[in-house]
Amino acid sequence: MPEPPDFSNWSCPLPLRDYPTIAMGHGGGGKLSAELIEHLFLPAFRNDALANLGDASIVPLTGERLAFSTDSFVVRPLFFPGGSIGDLAVNGTVNDLAVSGARPVYLSVGMILEEGFPIASLARIADDMAKAARSAGVQIVTGDTKVVERGHGDGCYINTSGIGLVTHAQEIGPTHAQVGDAVIVSGTLGDHGTAIMSVREGLEFQTTIRSDTAALNVLIEHVLQAGNSAVHVMRDPTRGGIASSLNEIATASKVGVVLEEKSLPVRAEVRAACELLGLDPVYVANEGKVLVFVAGSRAQGVLEAMRAHPLGRDSVVIGKVSDQHPGMVVAHTMIGATRVIPMQIGEQLPRIC
Amino acid sequence: MPEPPDFSNWSCPLPLRDYPTIAMGHGGGGKLSAELIEHLFLPAFRNDALANLGDASIVPLTGERLAFSTDSFVVRPLFFPGGSIGDLAVNGTVNDLAVSGARPVYLSVGMILEEGFPIASLARIADDMAKAARSAGVQIVTGDTKVVERGHGDGCYINTSGIGLVTHAQEIGPTHAQVGDAVIVSGTLGDHGTAIMSVREGLEFQTTIRSDTAALNVLIEHVLQAGNSAVHVMRDPTRGGIASSLNEIATASKVGVVLEEKSLPVRAEVRAACELLGLDPVYVANEGKVLVFVAGSRAQGVLEAMRAHPLGRDSVVIGKVSDQHPGMVVAHTMIGATRVIPMQIGEQLPRIC
Repeated sequence: MPEPPDFSNWSCPLPLRDYPTIAMGHGGGGKLSAELIEHLFLPAFRNDALANLGDASIVPLTGERLAFSTDSFVVRPLFFPGGSIGDLAVNGTVNDLAVSGARPVYLSVGMILEEGFPIASLARIADDMAKAARSAGVQIVTGDTKVVERGHGDGCYINTSGIGLVTHAQEIGPTHAQVGDAVIVSGTLGDHGTAIMSVREGLEFQTTIRSDTAALNVLIEHVLQAGNSAVHVMRDPTRGGIASSLNEIATASKVGVVLEEKSLPVRAEVRAACELLGLDPVYVANEGKVLVFVAGSRAQGVLEAMRAHPLGRDSVVIGKVSDQHPGMVVAHTMIGATRVIPMQIGEQLPRIC
Repeated sequence: MPEPPDFSNWSCPLPLRDYPTIAMGHGGGGKLSAELIEHLFLPAFRNDALANLGDASIVPLTGERLAFSTDSFVVRPLFFPGGSIGDLAVNGTVNDLAVSGARPVYLSVGMILEEGFPIASLARIADDMAKAARSAGVQIVTGDTKVVERGHGDGCYINTSGIGLVTHAQEIGPTHAQVGDAVIVSGTLGDHGTAIMSVREGLEFQTTIRSDTAALNVLIEHVLQAGNSAVHVMRDPTRGGIASSLNEIATASKVGVVLEEKSLPVRAEVRAACELLGLDPVYVANEGKVLVFVAGSRAQGVLEAMRAHPLGRDSVVIGKVSDQHPGMVVAHTMIGATRVIPMQIGEQLPRIC
């Protein structure tokens, strides 16, 4: 018979004491996620690569620099306007590698399927994954499938892990933002999260809002060619939206970030949906956008390179890095005030990816 | 609103038509798993590395040979005699890399947690993973956590993916078995599956049966040093037991495998439990054993090297490769008969890893 688990030698660090059990927000990419990582996973797994907290880890192997990343996808519904869990699972890991400055090369796929899930739906998902992989120029080279009993899953959960190769010399990561950097975003905010929520809530809008799921690796190659060592941070603002990504970067780099609210690009239909749903687009997930921190003097060149790519056509400078209020993100509002944009605490949009 | 998924262009290959929905056996590592891979995933993701069907894929990167592997773990219960889902998740991927002939180096961890899961249990699992990783000499360098609503999971599902490095010259894999090879197993059969089932069924045995979960990478280094290019196939017989692994190898290498039933090592308490539960130990999962196919002339040297390692103390030759009945596994029984040991069709032991 199994011994009862002995947790007596684990002293719960303070911030987790408020949550003796897992809450939805622990998977939301906001403050609770960060606490779980900082106070539970990092102390357990401690090593330099993990402590960097990038979207992918950059690790040495036989003289090369490898990027290694993993992401699980539990989005509901599995199919939505603009994509499916299959597209998301491939593009998400491709993007995590790319924003770390790596060229994505190989992916693995781990499926957890629920008994009774239609084979035809699985075929459709596999097909979406294959198309997304071809489009991004990566190969799916290894996989695994587990099945859980009816009622113990949601049809299909997917993990993708990816290997990339870092070939340039500069270090890019959330700790490298510098005062004077311009903050560029590659297009409109909140499309993915709003698309999912509007389907899930059964809301009817005049225009269907489509997820922006896309592989950003080619766009990011253009960013690196144009900006080179002036590119300091790249991040795909998924769960928790740009607010969470910018807060993480501000904290990690010990700098302030100042946004100009009027320059934040949000589609009219997304803005309308967010108002109906009570969401702030800066907290809503994107799945095909990249934030770029680049030295101010080089921002124009990078912006032009991004706009020349179809996925970066709507790129715009949304703010800058300041030596004021390190660790904080603030926005100059349209009425001339300044508001703090804090890290998201709970889970505004569960199961968005 | 989302378009209804269009499956019209997917023509279900014949073997899957019998199962329009996912059955437990599609995750069991037996015949249904193989059909899903052959008729759905391979056609979708087709590439050479995947088609090899090894436990890990061996892929080229900047002149090196990388091994890349992924595995999801959905075992119930999460804690059992001899280990936990945390140990399994680390050792399982370490072993998949090692049996492919690679030295395991880096792991990723993707967690899917259920709302309400105790933080203390998660800490215990993370601790088990960290200890297993240290013991195997690998680093956990990247991770991801998602949370699903209460009732949509089983506390904790874990995916681990791993990167290894292949440094020797020979090719090792399920297609390389040769007539005249001896088949060695590194110890007793069925310990893991029987341990899980006896806990789950609430069976009381005089002796507690413990899972054999262990990292085999050092034992396998000894195998490679002793056997070198005479080592043709290595495999960790997990889901579906040695029966499924041997059938896969027999099919992939187009050879026959002949087992001597009396030489199959099974602990008395495991044999008793299997009789009670109606299980055949050759189909029961192992999580700390390796099957080695080595040229007959070199078998003794490899056997001695394996027995010199604590995890291989009970290694024994259990059979040989024959040019008879290619693609089949047969056993000479203790009463002098010969029985066919087919691939497992359904799922004898669900959720065993």
